[in-house]
Amino acid sequence: MSQTPRHSAERSVPTSADVARLAGVSRATVSYVLNNTSAVRISEPTRRRVREAAEELGYVPHAAARTLRAGHTRIVLLPTAHIPVGPLYSRFISELQWALRRLDYTVVQYGSLGLDGDAAARAWAELRPVAVLSLGEIALTAQNVEVLKRSGAKAVITLGPQHVEGAHSLVMDQREVGVRAAEHLLERGRRRIGVVVPEEQGLDLFSAPRLAGVRQVAEPAGATVLPVPLAYEEEAADALAARWRGLGLDAVYAYNDEYAMLLMRSLQDAGIAVPDETAVIGADDLLLGRLLRPRLSTVRIDMVTGQLLAELVDRAVRDPTGVPERHDLMGAEVVRREST
Amino acid sequence: MSQTPRHSAERSVPTSADVARLAGVSRATVSYVLNNTSAVRISEPTRRRVREAAEELGYVPHAAARTLRAGHTRIVLLPTAHIPVGPLYSRFISELQWALRRLDYTVVQYGSLGLDGDAAARAWAELRPVAVLSLGEIALTAQNVEVLKRSGAKAVITLGPQHVEGAHSLVMDQREVGVRAAEHLLERGRRRIGVVVPEEQGLDLFSAPRLAGVRQVAEPAGATVLPVPLAYEEEAADALAARWRGLGLDAVYAYNDEYAMLLMRSLQDAGIAVPDETAVIGADDLLLGRLLRPRLSTVRIDMVTGQLLAELVDRAVRDPTGVPERHDLMGAEVVRREST
Repeated sequence: MSQTPRHSAERSVPTSADVARLAGVSRATVSYVLNNTSAVRISEPTRRRVREAAEELGYVPHAAARTLRAGHTRIVLLPTAHIPVGPLYSRFISELQWALRRLDYTVVQYGSLGLDGDAAARAWAELRPVAVLSLGEIALTAQNVEVLKRSGAKAVITLGPQHVEGAHSLVMDQREVGVRAAEHLLERGRRRIGVVVPEEQGLDLFSAPRLAGVRQVAEPAGATVLPVPLAYEEEAADALAARWRGLGLDAVYAYNDEYAMLLMRSLQDAGIAVPDETAVIGADDLLLGRLLRPRLSTVRIDMVTGQLLAELVDRAVRDPTGVPERHDLMGAEVVRREST
Repeated sequence: MSQTPRHSAERSVPTSADVARLAGVSRATVSYVLNNTSAVRISEPTRRRVREAAEELGYVPHAAARTLRAGHTRIVLLPTAHIPVGPLYSRFISELQWALRRLDYTVVQYGSLGLDGDAAARAWAELRPVAVLSLGEIALTAQNVEVLKRSGAKAVITLGPQHVEGAHSLVMDQREVGVRAAEHLLERGRRRIGVVVPEEQGLDLFSAPRLAGVRQVAEPAGATVLPVPLAYEEEAADALAARWRGLGLDAVYAYNDEYAMLLMRSLQDAGIAVPDETAVIGADDLLLGRLLRPRLSTVRIDMVTGQLLAELVDRAVRDPTGVPERHDLMGAEVVRREST
């Protein structure tokens, strides 16, 4: 069985050999000219002939070939969320990508649904990324980090609730959001706290630790905590509001501002006074929360900016033997308005 | 000057040669085993030895090498927006990526800021994508499409206001949104129509054709149209509301629901009755628009779903010589609630 020639499936795609033939030079010369190698002395007329031949044939250099020569890529692998995660997180992801691209990295998003850490690390390693930025959908182990580094990744950065050996860790503990919301509701004298748990798939990465944060503060203080499942639909919110008084709650932390706005409107339409009968607090500090009456109280989350994170990636890539950095990233603060 | 050996910069990265040495087989055998080539008969003990050696060394196959063998990649290049474009469009992009990943494509996002069509097409071609899905930030010419195809792209798909020769075209005319909004406001007897133009950078890709759509309908009907710049901030909306009566408008199409909600609240706080004194209409049909009082009228936009678009990409890749498809994608329909 002989080696398959390059591009056999695509005979019409011009190769550097075609360029070399047309220009009457060697393939090495084509490569030197098109990659602007200055170490090799090539006359200007020859350079021009190569460029014209490439132009005529529509040849462009092949990034994969360059990758093999260089041993690594400028790829930052970003296994992004496959679920809708709200405007705050979307904006963060988009800022991050943009900042990385400005630093001349190529951002490759890679879906990892149904993969465990071992399978994900191997699949990612095949692309030879220069850095992997794991945003918490898959829990990587120290061994997974090692596989990625052995494949040439100069930096592995994890964003999540805990530190991973060998990786730069951005520790972001969502419990903090629940803790702040609960502290505020207790201060306002509330003792029977509902916690909205979105029914939309994939959000438990955020909602489960937030619920745990509420429990952690409320239960030792003698308050009761009731998880309240809710889908992001008007009908679901109306149905919940209709049976609200039966739940015996005097406050609700509604996951984020969108769920809070939805639920507050349904509670009001059902004749339940906010905040007198039930206090409502969201999270994210969306502008729209200020437009409702009463104005929505919220937990403002100070997340790392995409720009800062991109700079950390770049620093880590340039100094692959540096000591892994660890940053605690999440600040959360209550903004009290009128709904609590 | 001799050829640089592979991975010279990364001597610790294991290669298939290392695996071959450890397993006592040829590099070709390693390649057959790890790529699951069934055409070559290799005994199970040998296969096991190769896999164990790869495991021990932490070797994973190199996607770039496979790309060179295959002549193309499974990369779909997606030059995505570098600007915040609202929840509807974000959801569409995220659905599209997800659907492509399910079809076993690797989605590569590529920033193209400041590149013209020629430079962008060449930069994209270097990655040898199997398909390019240009979402309208860069206007590609027929020649750009040709460059991409010569580099091996089996499909180029453009999403935008017009058809591009050689590409599958998803024609999406944002003017339609403005047309529907204006028709509705005229029907409601309004004759002096403001059109909110967001001050945020990059949104003119959407706002300019929407404004043109309003003019196209309103001016022949004898109505006046006034562009109204607005930043997405409470202070900006309050300032605009304070000088609202001086503008002499009886209606406003406020770009999208977010700007409409923001402006409507400021108008109400300034004592301007909605809809009696000024009718307000947004676009996107966000759930939150139904939570305000009066409930917000809106233009519902029926965009192509990410799933359908991913299927079109896949069909085009499988049949590269097929006739370019052209679809008109944008449906827009007014949902009248209480604000108009």
